[in-house]
Amino acid sequence: MIFSDPASVAVVGASDNPAKWGHWLARGALVGRDRRAVHLVNRGGGPVLSEPTVRSLSELPEPPELVVLAVPAAHVPAVVDEALAVGVRGFVGIPSGIEDGVVTRIREAGARLLGPNCLGVFDAATSLHLAWGRFQPGSLGVVSQSGQVGLEVAGLAASSGTGVSRFVSVGNQADVTAAEALLELVSHDLTKVVGVYLESFGPGIVTAMSELRAAGKPVVLLTVGSSVAAREAARTHTGALTSCLDVVDAACRRAGAVRVATPAALVDLAAVLTSGTPRGPRVGVISDSGGQGAIAADLAVAAGLSVPALSAVDGLPEGAARRNPIDLAGAGERDLRNYARAVEVLLRGGEVDSVVLSGYFGCYGPDTPSLEVPEVAVAHRICALARETGVPVVVHSMREDSAAVRALRAGGVPVQHTVERALAALGDATRLGRSSPEVVSGRAATTTPFRPGYLAARELLDFVRFPAAHAVRSAAQARATTLTGPYVLKADRLAHKSEHGGVRLGVTDPAAAFEEMQARLGPGTYVLEEMDTRENTVELIIGAKRDHSFGPVVLVGAGGVHAELFRDTAIELAPVTPATARDMLARLVCAPLLTGWRGAPATDVTALAEVIARISETLAARPDLAEIELNPVRVGPDGVLAVDALIVPSGDALNDSGGLYVA
Amino acid sequence: MIFSDPASVAVVGASDNPAKWGHWLARGALVGRDRRAVHLVNRGGGPVLSEPTVRSLSELPEPPELVVLAVPAAHVPAVVDEALAVGVRGFVGIPSGIEDGVVTRIREAGARLLGPNCLGVFDAATSLHLAWGRFQPGSLGVVSQSGQVGLEVAGLAASSGTGVSRFVSVGNQADVTAAEALLELVSHDLTKVVGVYLESFGPGIVTAMSELRAAGKPVVLLTVGSSVAAREAARTHTGALTSCLDVVDAACRRAGAVRVATPAALVDLAAVLTSGTPRGPRVGVISDSGGQGAIAADLAVAAGLSVPALSAVDGLPEGAARRNPIDLAGAGERDLRNYARAVEVLLRGGEVDSVVLSGYFGCYGPDTPSLEVPEVAVAHRICALARETGVPVVVHSMREDSAAVRALRAGGVPVQHTVERALAALGDATRLGRSSPEVVSGRAATTTPFRPGYLAARELLDFVRFPAAHAVRSAAQARATTLTGPYVLKADRLAHKSEHGGVRLGVTDPAAAFEEMQARLGPGTYVLEEMDTRENTVELIIGAKRDHSFGPVVLVGAGGVHAELFRDTAIELAPVTPATARDMLARLVCAPLLTGWRGAPATDVTALAEVIARISETLAARPDLAEIELNPVRVGPDGVLAVDALIVPSGDALNDSGGLYVA
Repeated sequence: MIFSDPASVAVVGASDNPAKWGHWLARGALVGRDRRAVHLVNRGGGPVLSEPTVRSLSELPEPPELVVLAVPAAHVPAVVDEALAVGVRGFVGIPSGIEDGVVTRIREAGARLLGPNCLGVFDAATSLHLAWGRFQPGSLGVVSQSGQVGLEVAGLAASSGTGVSRFVSVGNQADVTAAEALLELVSHDLTKVVGVYLESFGPGIVTAMSELRAAGKPVVLLTVGSSVAAREAARTHTGALTSCLDVVDAACRRAGAVRVATPAALVDLAAVLTSGTPRGPRVGVISDSGGQGAIAADLAVAAGLSVPALSAVDGLPEGAARRNPIDLAGAGERDLRNYARAVEVLLRGGEVDSVVLSGYFGCYGPDTPSLEVPEVAVAHRICALARETGVPVVVHSMREDSAAVRALRAGGVPVQHTVERALAALGDATRLGRSSPEVVSGRAATTTPFRPGYLAARELLDFVRFPAAHAVRSAAQARATTLTGPYVLKADRLAHKSEHGGVRLGVTDPAAAFEEMQARLGPGTYVLEEMDTRENTVELIIGAKRDHSFGPVVLVGAGGVHAELFRDTAIELAPVTPATARDMLARLVCAPLLTGWRGAPATDVTALAEVIARISETLAARPDLAEIELNPVRVGPDGVLAVDALIVPSGDALNDSGGLYVA
Repeated sequence: MIFSDPASVAVVGASDNPAKWGHWLARGALVGRDRRAVHLVNRGGGPVLSEPTVRSLSELPEPPELVVLAVPAAHVPAVVDEALAVGVRGFVGIPSGIEDGVVTRIREAGARLLGPNCLGVFDAATSLHLAWGRFQPGSLGVVSQSGQVGLEVAGLAASSGTGVSRFVSVGNQADVTAAEALLELVSHDLTKVVGVYLESFGPGIVTAMSELRAAGKPVVLLTVGSSVAAREAARTHTGALTSCLDVVDAACRRAGAVRVATPAALVDLAAVLTSGTPRGPRVGVISDSGGQGAIAADLAVAAGLSVPALSAVDGLPEGAARRNPIDLAGAGERDLRNYARAVEVLLRGGEVDSVVLSGYFGCYGPDTPSLEVPEVAVAHRICALARETGVPVVVHSMREDSAAVRALRAGGVPVQHTVERALAALGDATRLGRSSPEVVSGRAATTTPFRPGYLAARELLDFVRFPAAHAVRSAAQARATTLTGPYVLKADRLAHKSEHGGVRLGVTDPAAAFEEMQARLGPGTYVLEEMDTRENTVELIIGAKRDHSFGPVVLVGAGGVHAELFRDTAIELAPVTPATARDMLARLVCAPLLTGWRGAPATDVTALAEVIARISETLAARPDLAEIELNPVRVGPDGVLAVDALIVPSGDALNDSGGLYVA
């Protein structure tokens, strides 16, 4: 592809001044001159970096395939027009402020533009270095909407030993998108793990991440909350409870990717993933110091991992505390090989999914030169054990750099200078290991047309059980009901009924209640319903809405104040299968209430999961609906009953006052 | 003091072998030879480190004041006895396994022992270097129960530029305690901030931390959860809800200290505190890259800080995005002085309490040598501005080290290589700024003697409002009640009444209810009570218990499942003032329910805080009581009503079956 391995490149704006971008890009381009023709273009002529230059692209004997635009934005239109005239196929647009008209001309000519406002592209496989900055070749593919964040990732990847296989700064994505740049990495052999920084999410991102995961290349997504497009005005509780990052996390779970919050977290996780993915959350912690082991164990638990008690700890050095964390208690210092022995006991014991060695290892050589060689030998042994068993090992060393630290990194064992980075990376890797990309095709949804109001919502959601109810338009109708009391009386077409006095619970005299409510809210359709008086029920909210970036999402949360104050919700991209819906329920803090809390009977979680799945399918299959909400839903041992429902059609601006849609 | 500035020292076990501790300790001791006599003792005789040695302490012309025991534990008794015989006053006990008998002999002789199982002591003020490891002199005082963790702290303090003023490895604290070592730092001039690592908490710790804070030396406490003594068996909900680390945090708040989880967090926070303490949570973020600014802003919010919109942003360079985070958008690169200008605008604007500069600053010099001098000049300017305004500035630089990075650190501006460390430290510093040490003397508590049962608890807690109630011992008594229904019937002396069917709510026929319950639970005293049927009440739990390390603590939490599933609790050392009790209530996630949730009337928070304070005072003043619990307590607009109470006397093992104490 033109941005991976062009036959020839030209840097327009090449400069001898090291404070100018054109200097760095020219220097980088020349790195690849053994593989491709490299032309430097400078308006003034004269040599740059001791290489001859031409004054304009038209002076070149043949048109370059790819042109790097390292000139001020004001000069770009003329350069691009000249380049298109001679047949250039691709542009790397460094400056910001390239006009839309120029982008259009590039696309109409069938050429492609990376950027503008980007730092360029680097590819270790093809010696393509058309980017600002230094890159250490390695296995992490980087795609970044922010050039600077991408550079920070690349810099940290260099010091971690992971290195960068390919770096694409997509900038403003006027033509080439982040999704395209990600898809290119699927078949990029050097790339083993992908790190991507995005502030906004185009349509192909989830698919691209899924394809990378399917190709065995896990994706680590770095994003920010405050820069994502402002949250849509909430029209339902579901909307108010769905934060941008929650939806991004749901998209990551769907794609088998994982989100992190900082460049260091991205690189630390990538370093773990290049060595393997933990098969579960059980960590074995080894230290020569009880304190350092305890700190690591605490951090493991904080990262969502477990530090299980071990049974198979034969072979540990004498004096070592055999509980997990394993405290070598000086045995490591007595004989460095005891570090490798302890690692081996854990790796072969089959009782942990990853191992953390924390503390002084890596410092012996620098402090006592005679120990350097034995320490490096132990490092090699640890690397061999990790490779052989396929169980990830991460080392925290009090030394940032030493022969043993370098030996570990070169052997594929990540080393962190602070223990929190070691455990955070293992926690993230374990999250990633748990997520498996899923392709869900929902069942066909109801074709009942949308009509406003509670009764119509009950009809449309015919797979949901509601209490027996009927419309009431007069006191006489209310009086003649054949339903069993106590009753609930509702104003049919009021969206936020409770807040506006449109719901009355525990009604015993339906006619009187109707007259009172109609006097307040005016004539219209009211609904008389049997009140749900079952015991041992748990109240939840189930909702689905369209996210502006990722499309349909589904939410389940603890009911009432729990959801709003305690933010006890689980969110996934819709549609979900009943199995995924069960996972969502299990993630809720209130999950123990569903399965028999303090001797209460277990609720019908199967039926509940089915309702969640069907709600998610309905919204996903029906673009005419913007939001669906069942709030509250009550689940008991005998099944699920929704006691209110709200459907918002697409494009509908719900009356904020909560007034009746139709009188 | 003998461990701060001894007139003479002897290292017993001095060695020429660099793999032996006696080598390092001898080398360290010799550093101070200009200030004090340093003697090396080696059983074999012959020079060590080219210095003469003696074979035993008795060969010395005068007894050394302080002896470092760097010999194997087996040799310690003989060395100590000889030392005591010649009049040695202090010992640094390096090896583990020094017998209790030796410790007793040292103490009986009026001498002191640091350790055993310690790494020694370092004091930058007196050139005292009787510890393993390297120390960079600075302003952080370190006291550590784990030698290795202490060394890790010291190493990180060296690279952060903070350095160590004094280092005391207290080891097993057989004689000198961590609290003593902390108190010594109160008057230690070089020490500006104190870092302490503890796995257990002796009686004087809170006092020592408070005195340090009062002396203007904030304390950062590093501890672990799993290593702290196992949680006591919970006899009340209060007990089950009080985790060790919650109590440690309460102790820190009381002392004006702050807890962190890792050595790096300790040192990063110390680096901020040496430059100042933020006066509030408002952070101004500056970056030359929108992405890096957004990442820093997200981290600020995650750390409990705010990134407020700014009004006073005159003077920013052209093109800069004036919102917070401030995106210089290339203006920093165009003219490095713009970094200092932006910092100045924020520091002088009075709208933020701290400033974070994140990204490329610190990298210009290394990447473009001609920029080194101007970049260092900008670094100096930033340091001067921070000093002048007293507002903490923290820099995140993509470069671990450069002339500008060193200039910033030397000028008192902390620099972090990862942005998460910068924001975590500011978050911790802000928490510390918010905590103010408090000395609370509770009011005199009731002298009513303890008797078991609910009715007796109501009498003892005579400052709490309970529903009207009376004892019932027969159906006739129940039938003759003058209370107003509906009623609640309770088995008086059953501790966990609800779980054992000892509470019946909504009773309308007291005599029938009494007969039914007595038939199940046997004869005894029952209580008939008016049921609390007020609307708009919020249910809470209030409890107090004795912590094995810190003594009386008080807890308030959301009622019912909220406290247990959502862990919505606040804990403080007891007694607390009503003002602190209000702060506790404000910290609860369910706090909005108390102050008028969704149009409901506000509850009587003043009365609630008063109950919390009185409960805390009662437990603190009455050693005869182990636990007091009001659960639930219902607060409404008209005050507080406790609808159950439980008091556990000290030393009492509550019947686990929840059975009656007395038939």
